Amino acid sequence: MSEISPLAPASFPELPPIAGLALSTHAAGIYYEARADLFLAEMAEGTTVAGTFTQSLCPSAPVDWCKRILAEGDGTARAIACNSGNANAFTGRAGETAAALTAELIGEALDLEPDRIYLASTGVIGETLPEDALRTGLPALADGLDNANARTWADAAAAIRTTDTFSKGASSRVPGTAAHIVGIAKGSGMIAPDMATMLAFVFTDLGVASDILQVALSRSVARSFNRITVDSDTSTSDTVLLFATGEQIDDEILTTDDDRFPDFQDALDEVLLDLAHQIVRDGEGATKFVEIAVTGAESDDAAEAIAFSVGNSPLVKTALAAADANWGRVVMAVGKAGQAADRDALAIWIGPEQVAAHGAVVDGYSEERATAHLQEDEVSITVDVGVGEGSATIWTCDLTHGYIEINAGYRS
Amino acid sequence: MSEISPLAPASFPELPPIAGLALSTHAAGIYYEARADLFLAEMAEGTTVAGTFTQSLCPSAPVDWCKRILAEGDGTARAIACNSGNANAFTGRAGETAAALTAELIGEALDLEPDRIYLASTGVIGETLPEDALRTGLPALADGLDNANARTWADAAAAIRTTDTFSKGASSRVPGTAAHIVGIAKGSGMIAPDMATMLAFVFTDLGVASDILQVALSRSVARSFNRITVDSDTSTSDTVLLFATGEQIDDEILTTDDDRFPDFQDALDEVLLDLAHQIVRDGEGATKFVEIAVTGAESDDAAEAIAFSVGNSPLVKTALAAADANWGRVVMAVGKAGQAADRDALAIWIGPEQVAAHGAVVDGYSEERATAHLQEDEVSITVDVGVGEGSATIWTCDLTHGYIEINAGYRS
Repeated sequence: MSEISPLAPASFPELPPIAGLALSTHAAGIYYEARADLFLAEMAEGTTVAGTFTQSLCPSAPVDWCKRILAEGDGTARAIACNSGNANAFTGRAGETAAALTAELIGEALDLEPDRIYLASTGVIGETLPEDALRTGLPALADGLDNANARTWADAAAAIRTTDTFSKGASSRVPGTAAHIVGIAKGSGMIAPDMATMLAFVFTDLGVASDILQVALSRSVARSFNRITVDSDTSTSDTVLLFATGEQIDDEILTTDDDRFPDFQDALDEVLLDLAHQIVRDGEGATKFVEIAVTGAESDDAAEAIAFSVGNSPLVKTALAAADANWGRVVMAVGKAGQAADRDALAIWIGPEQVAAHGAVVDGYSEERATAHLQEDEVSITVDVGVGEGSATIWTCDLTHGYIEINAGYRS
Repeated sequence: MSEISPLAPASFPELPPIAGLALSTHAAGIYYEARADLFLAEMAEGTTVAGTFTQSLCPSAPVDWCKRILAEGDGTARAIACNSGNANAFTGRAGETAAALTAELIGEALDLEPDRIYLASTGVIGETLPEDALRTGLPALADGLDNANARTWADAAAAIRTTDTFSKGASSRVPGTAAHIVGIAKGSGMIAPDMATMLAFVFTDLGVASDILQVALSRSVARSFNRITVDSDTSTSDTVLLFATGEQIDDEILTTDDDRFPDFQDALDEVLLDLAHQIVRDGEGATKFVEIAVTGAESDDAAEAIAFSVGNSPLVKTALAAADANWGRVVMAVGKAGQAADRDALAIWIGPEQVAAHGAVVDGYSEERATAHLQEDEVSITVDVGVGEGSATIWTCDLTHGYIEINAGYRS
C-alpha cells in the first residue's frame, strides 16, 4: 500500500445513514491483497436511479450492462454490486458472461430481477473475472447486508478502492427535509497493477423521479467529476450512479420546477464536488491541489477547454511541482488550446499575484510573491483570455517524480 | 549543458554545400551561456520561400513577422536570421519593435529589403530582446557570412540550439539533378530556463516556384514534424522554413506535374523525417524512440488522432519507460481518443508480438517476449481498430524521471 497522499483529509468523514439502504462488503480474493473487494448496496423497492458513464469507446462489460439496463428499464433499481481488483474490461464475451453471472447470483440471493441490479468493476484490465470467486463470494456478500449502515460507510468506501491512498466519502443534508445525500468514490489516476477508474455511488433518501434524478446528476457531474484531471487519461470503466430511495419524503420531486429541486441540486453538487476534489487530492504523486480558473473566453465550453489545456500540460504541471512561477508555460498552454484568445489582452494571475496584463508582464510583478504562493499545498492559476464572457474552473494536481515512480514500475 | 541523449546519432552528419547560400553565426550574449546565439543565412537573388508555423493562438513576434511577409511578398526571400536564448514571445509591442529592428539591421548590413528577411527566435518567453545586443551583434553576424558554407553547417546547427543535447542536421540529393537539400533543426520539448521551440531551416539549390515549394513543404511537414510528439505541448514559436536558391538547375519546377517534382518531394520528405526523428531522439528525458502505428481506422485523420492519444498518454509513456507490457493502457488510450473503434475487433502488437485480437488477449501471447522488445532502445506499438482503412504512424519517446528532473527545476 502506498503512503497516504499529503493532500488527504485528516480522516474519513462521519456519514449519516440513508433510510431504505443496506450495505455489505466481503473479501472474495479478487483483489491481489487480502481485503474486502466486493461491495453491495440493496435499496428499498421504488428506488429511482440515474447514471453517467465513461465516454470511452472501449467500455468495460459492467459499463455496457449499466447503460443497457438504465436505457431499457423503468427508472428503478434495487442494488449496486461492485468488485475491485479486476476491471472486467477488454475481456470479450467472457466479460459479458461474468457481468451477467454477477447480477444473476445477487438476484438469486436477494430475490431480485437481475435487470434491477447495477454493476461496476475496477482493477486490472484484460483478465477474466474468476467465476469461482463470484460463485462463493457474491452469496456471502448478500448474506452480509446490514441495515445499521451508518457503521459501514467506511467499509464500503474501503472495499471499492484499488490504488487510492485514502477512502473517499462525503455527505450533505437536503435543506427543509429529513433527507440526506451520501456518496462514496474511488479513483486516483491509474497505477500498476491496476487499471484505475473513477467510481462514485451516491445515495439519497429523498424521493426523486428518475428523469429528474438524471437531470440533477448530469448537471452535477458536469460541474464536478467532469472538471477534474489527474493525468488526462480516461478509464474504460468510469461510472457515477445516483440512487434515491424516497424513504424520507412523502411525495417525490417530479419536475425541476418543484420548489425543493434547487436545494436538492445544491446539496448534490456539494457531495459530488467534495468527492471530485478528494480524487484530485489522491492524484498519483500529487503534492499540490491546483485550481485553474479561466475567464473572458468565447463561451463556458471554450473556457473549460482552455482550462484543461493548462491543467493537462506536463510543462505547467512540472513547473507547479517545483513551485516555479513559469508563467510562459501557461501562455503556451493557452495558445495551444485551439480556442479564441487575444494574445494582446491576456491577463494571468498566480494566486493573488497578477503576472501579466495586455499580453505582457505587469509593472511591479513579484516573482518572489508568486513563488511563495506556489509553495503552498493549495495553489491557483487564473487566466483572462480577453475575448468574451465565458468562464470555467477546473481542478488538478502537479506532476512529480511520484507519478513516474508509481506508473513506471512493473505490474506486480 | 545536459548530458547527450542516449538516443542521439553517433555524430553530426556530413552535409553538402548549397549553391547560392552563405552562412554565419555569432555570439551576441543573448543566450545565458557564452556561445554563438545568432544564425544568419543569406540566399542568392531569386530564392523562393515556403513556410509553416505554429498553430498557437499566442504566437511569437517573429512568427507574426514571417507570416506577414510570406503572405504579402512575391514568394522570394534573401535571408533568414535566428537568435537563441530569447523567444521574443509574449512581449507585446516591444516584441514587434525588436523583430522589425532585427530585419532592419540585417537589411542595412546586406543592402536588402527588410521584407525579404525571415526571422525566428527561441528561448525564454516574456522577456524583451536586448536592443544593445542586436545593435552590436547583428552587424557582426552579417560581416561573418562565409561562402564556404560546407564548413559551417555544424556551427549553424549549434547556434540555434537551446536545451537540445545534440545538433540536428540532415541532407539528401535530388535524384537526376546536381541539387541537394540540407536542413538543420532544433527542439527537444521545453526546459527551464528556455521556452523550447521546434525550428527547422531547410535549403535546396534546386529551383522551385514558391507556390509549388509551399505544396511540397506542407505535404512533407504533415508526414514528419506534425507526426511527432514529445510531451503534447506546442510552442508559441514553431517554424519550418524552406528556401530554394535555384543555383543548380536551369529551369524551375513550376508545377506539381513536373517529372522532377516527385523526386524532389521524396528527397524533401527524407530530410524532414530525419530531422523530426532527431527531435524525438532528443526528447527531454527520453530513453526510448517509440513508433506508434494505427491501422483500420475510419480515415487517416482518425488513425492519427488515435495514434496521438496513445503517444501522448502519460500512462502509456511511463509504461514504456519501465519496459512494462501494460497493453491495458493502450486500450484505454484508444478508447479515449474519441474516434470510431470496434472494441471487439481491436488487435494490438508490441513490436512483433501480437497481444490481442478480436478484443481479447490472444492464445499464446508471451508477456516475456513483449517485455524483451520493450527493453530495446527503439520500440513499436501497433493497433488495428477494426473499422476501416485509415492508417497513420507517429513517433514519440517515453516519459521518465529525466523529464520531471528537467522540467521541475527552477529556471536558472
